[in-house]
Amino acid sequence: MSRLWSPLVHRLTPYVPGEQPKLPNLVKLNTNESPYGPSPRVTAAIQAELATGDGNGERLRLYPDPNADLLKQAIARHFGLPATQVFVGNGSDEVLAHAFMGLLQHDAPLLFPDISYSFYPVYAGLYGIEPRTVPLDDGFGIRIDDYLPEAAGNAGGIIFPNPNAPTGRALPLADIRRLLKARPDCVVVVDEAYVDFGAESAASLVADHDNLLVVQTFSKSRALAGLRVGFALGHPALIEALERVKNSFNSYPLDRLAIVGGVAAIEDDAWFRGSCAKVVRSREALVAALAALGFEVLPSSANFVFARHPQHDAGGLAAALRERSIIVRHFRQPARISQFLRITIGTEQQCALLVDALTSITA
Amino acid sequence: MSRLWSPLVHRLTPYVPGEQPKLPNLVKLNTNESPYGPSPRVTAAIQAELATGDGNGERLRLYPDPNADLLKQAIARHFGLPATQVFVGNGSDEVLAHAFMGLLQHDAPLLFPDISYSFYPVYAGLYGIEPRTVPLDDGFGIRIDDYLPEAAGNAGGIIFPNPNAPTGRALPLADIRRLLKARPDCVVVVDEAYVDFGAESAASLVADHDNLLVVQTFSKSRALAGLRVGFALGHPALIEALERVKNSFNSYPLDRLAIVGGVAAIEDDAWFRGSCAKVVRSREALVAALAALGFEVLPSSANFVFARHPQHDAGGLAAALRERSIIVRHFRQPARISQFLRITIGTEQQCALLVDALTSITA
Repeated sequence: MSRLWSPLVHRLTPYVPGEQPKLPNLVKLNTNESPYGPSPRVTAAIQAELATGDGNGERLRLYPDPNADLLKQAIARHFGLPATQVFVGNGSDEVLAHAFMGLLQHDAPLLFPDISYSFYPVYAGLYGIEPRTVPLDDGFGIRIDDYLPEAAGNAGGIIFPNPNAPTGRALPLADIRRLLKARPDCVVVVDEAYVDFGAESAASLVADHDNLLVVQTFSKSRALAGLRVGFALGHPALIEALERVKNSFNSYPLDRLAIVGGVAAIEDDAWFRGSCAKVVRSREALVAALAALGFEVLPSSANFVFARHPQHDAGGLAAALRERSIIVRHFRQPARISQFLRITIGTEQQCALLVDALTSITA
Repeated sequence: MSRLWSPLVHRLTPYVPGEQPKLPNLVKLNTNESPYGPSPRVTAAIQAELATGDGNGERLRLYPDPNADLLKQAIARHFGLPATQVFVGNGSDEVLAHAFMGLLQHDAPLLFPDISYSFYPVYAGLYGIEPRTVPLDDGFGIRIDDYLPEAAGNAGGIIFPNPNAPTGRALPLADIRRLLKARPDCVVVVDEAYVDFGAESAASLVADHDNLLVVQTFSKSRALAGLRVGFALGHPALIEALERVKNSFNSYPLDRLAIVGGVAAIEDDAWFRGSCAKVVRSREALVAALAALGFEVLPSSANFVFARHPQHDAGGLAAALRERSIIVRHFRQPARISQFLRITIGTEQQCALLVDALTSITA
């Protein structure tokens, strides 16, 4: 029956998200969700939206603002940028997809790290973009020199996460600034899904670099993976490209509850700072505990760690943890990372359960 | 600065949605929203989701089910189909976009009515599909004969709304069945955004026709335009194509609140039938009142009417209504419909205000 498919569909290899098991009592450390719930102001804002009118969600009968102006303005205020430099979407995955189509689809290859967010090659396949992966260095770091024209030749665009996933390693802003200057004719997308846990955001570079697009999400540091809100910051012309694609695809991508919840989330800076700080403290404690068990842990600026044990197979460890109802992420491919586990920072209690389990498994 | 755009962006002409003015006290009859709020069960389900865990939206920290299984199952039960024949998306616009990319993007033209949902040519532009419009007949009806191979030649796909928008006219199922048989090698998408207000759904044909995709939305008859939920019904192979595209674009398009709200909405059949019946009654009364004022009104099976007055310019009428805080939709293009107004069915009170205003304007 595939005779009815568009030719494109036959060659798609869709992204496989981390599993979302529906079992209770799991210690779920596999998809980098926040261990803490969102700012209570989010629920209050959603409740207020539902209470407007007849008190029974009457306002849901009306389309949302197609431009989500209130949310754009709140994000703009937070970053000290005009709202014309903000784009919002249904999760940062949608924002990234529009960036691939609207800014990165050229007759030259798209550069990204060989070990990185595995959705990038999927987007490239969807939009017919030639992917060209650039190997991480021996310490699993991004080497900016490898992305410069001298080393990499012509490029239609560059994208990488900072901190990188699944390694957790961060780049200094000076490196990103150097890349932006060396590549004035291509868009550099810095995917900052994890930036709030210890890396420097390139948002401060947006005002001075017309080829920079910074993408962030509410899913991690604002604990709203379930609400689907992502955004991009960039020069107004880059934002306009994203708006054109969006308005040719789906005019109303953010629902009313996501818009009001997103506004409340970005405005509660005290909650945000406190929650990120808790995660960072737990990470440092977990890194120390894993090291004490003999794990090699890459330096992490994210809400997860990437670790391997010299004596224990990663697949075996993941399976043994799963038997104890603890789920972490293990990537069989590429081979270079097949002995690593990516472990989300959980609550203190979850981290303790993990360390106990690994102590027993590796004993 | 457009030098950084993908070449595609330069030739995009995005869709322009009906305006969503932010003024209070408008009689807003321009975007075919429901005049009544959704089933109260929707708010109850969203409240319950927010109350789970810490009572402050804690569950929002977790990604939604990427497959929205609970919603697919609820829709499947409603239509008596297996869940493998259901696809869900962020509004039916997203579902349609994926259908254009995954099922309608071929080396042959896509057929659709010359007067129809104005997003279709936008999608065609986005995905590089050759659009071929087929004129409506003199009564603004779709003539199925004009879509058959004898009349239209080779086709890579066919799409039309039933009832059609902005005309409101419906096709009988026998016509759709005839088309499906005559076009076994192309997908026929029946866009049923307005079907619940008086047309026959082709959902009953899905089990027997592997080339039929039926698309519906929760935005109109379920009064959830603000929540962004749409779906498609079709053969499992057609659904698989949509899933492949979706999983190459955005793995989690429906947020947690949209999923639980959507389940509650589709399960409240009593509310649904009652609300649709009220809209249909108001429509019949409005049609009679407009006819009494001298308007020609096309026979409508939707939650709007399409009407023109032989002595009054449509643009002038729309402007005069706007001065009275009543907004209706006027399409300047194509010329054939430039003298029509598309008027959403409001509450009884809103319809009365509209008729009073038109009585005064046309006096």
